[in-house]
Amino acid sequence: MEHIQSTKNARVKEWKKLFSKKGRDKSDLYIIEGFHLVEEALKNQAVKEIMIEEDRELPDDLIIENIRINTITSEVSKTISETETTQGIFAVCHKKQLEIDISSHPRLLLLDRVQDPGNIGTMIRTAEAAGMDAVILGEGSGDLYNSKVIRSAQGSHFHIHVESGNLHEWIDKLKAANLPVFGTALENGVSYEAVDPVKSFALIVGNEGSGISQEILEKTDKNLYIPIYGKSESLNVAIAAGILLYYLRK
Amino acid sequence: MEHIQSTKNARVKEWKKLFSKKGRDKSDLYIIEGFHLVEEALKNQAVKEIMIEEDRELPDDLIIENIRINTITSEVSKTISETETTQGIFAVCHKKQLEIDISSHPRLLLLDRVQDPGNIGTMIRTAEAAGMDAVILGEGSGDLYNSKVIRSAQGSHFHIHVESGNLHEWIDKLKAANLPVFGTALENGVSYEAVDPVKSFALIVGNEGSGISQEILEKTDKNLYIPIYGKSESLNVAIAAGILLYYLRK
Repeated sequence: MEHIQSTKNARVKEWKKLFSKKGRDKSDLYIIEGFHLVEEALKNQAVKEIMIEEDRELPDDLIIENIRINTITSEVSKTISETETTQGIFAVCHKKQLEIDISSHPRLLLLDRVQDPGNIGTMIRTAEAAGMDAVILGEGSGDLYNSKVIRSAQGSHFHIHVESGNLHEWIDKLKAANLPVFGTALENGVSYEAVDPVKSFALIVGNEGSGISQEILEKTDKNLYIPIYGKSESLNVAIAAGILLYYLRK
Repeated sequence: MEHIQSTKNARVKEWKKLFSKKGRDKSDLYIIEGFHLVEEALKNQAVKEIMIEEDRELPDDLIIENIRINTITSEVSKTISETETTQGIFAVCHKKQLEIDISSHPRLLLLDRVQDPGNIGTMIRTAEAAGMDAVILGEGSGDLYNSKVIRSAQGSHFHIHVESGNLHEWIDKLKAANLPVFGTALENGVSYEAVDPVKSFALIVGNEGSGISQEILEKTDKNLYIPIYGKSESLNVAIAAGILLYYLRK
């Protein structure tokens, strides 16, 4: 156990590097915050070290073996926190990826340039809850290990395969395996209720403002829309994904 | 047209009062930010005055009659902005409430102590899109005119009745009108798919951490749950509302 008091300590500098994608990619590590996430990370053997404010206590039921624990001052805690009111507990985690086998009739959610980290994280959480097997983050869709993505995902990323990839290559691969690939569109689509639920499928959702790119829409088997009964122009992308994933998997 | 340069100007102080619920309740006004929202507010005759940064231009297609326009410096803009990157356009709006008639077989969404303003706003947007007639914010559910709620609602609050109220009184009133009232629960409920879609209903969703209070759960006709097929403990409340509203209204 080490006690870290200065925000200029070399370890604090290492932790802060994990705020950037560059820093995370270089080290294959990321940082998480809050009791619930640290607990989930421990359960999933992802933790490298824990940082906890000196006046806080680790819950008794946490199983911590061979993991370095650092106590930190509240000043250090504020420096490495990315929330407004921190719980004062953090962990550095190893990036880990679950496996996915396309021949096993999986269900996948593909994100085309979704920008908002909260939307990305919420969709990972929803996909995992809906029993999906993987979430593919297309180019321009942000990084799984961004702290806001991880926070919104609420630990679900430990239980579902998430990877960054080229959506065109993925769609080709999925179609070669005879998986139906559904896009989502406001125009020139079919109402989702006109499609029958299927055992295995891929659903693509797109950017908050512009939706799915035209080239991708042209490669899908069908493009679905959710009817709008009011005067809104659209639904939030994560809400739309939730409605479609639960409908399609029935 | 007035040009406002100082953050200490009396008008700036009046605008800043609208950041707090107290200030909004006292004046019956609220403040909105961004081109899309200002456009929606103008379309719905809710605007009292507009503030725009001196180097920005009002879009030509905005219909502005008898509305005071203030140009402001970027310093003033930053002072009254609640976003990280402001678009430099704001409006002070009159609070307005649409009417609701319980005898007309309405559909309602009731929120029991939902805390996150983003969740509240997203649910108002989703409810409006799903053709609901009203959203009732129960005690402890935050204020409609909070800037984050308004931002997440994306202008949908102009098209749907939203009011704060006592949920117990509402439930009594709805049951007296023979409307089925559905709660949502993780335990002791029925799967939502076991319920048939209905023309008219009320759906209640609850607090992000603790759900709907026990006293309210006991007053509903049925409490619904959404099956979790993965290892997540729950869905985000706005996602759950989206799935249920679209399912029930079919």
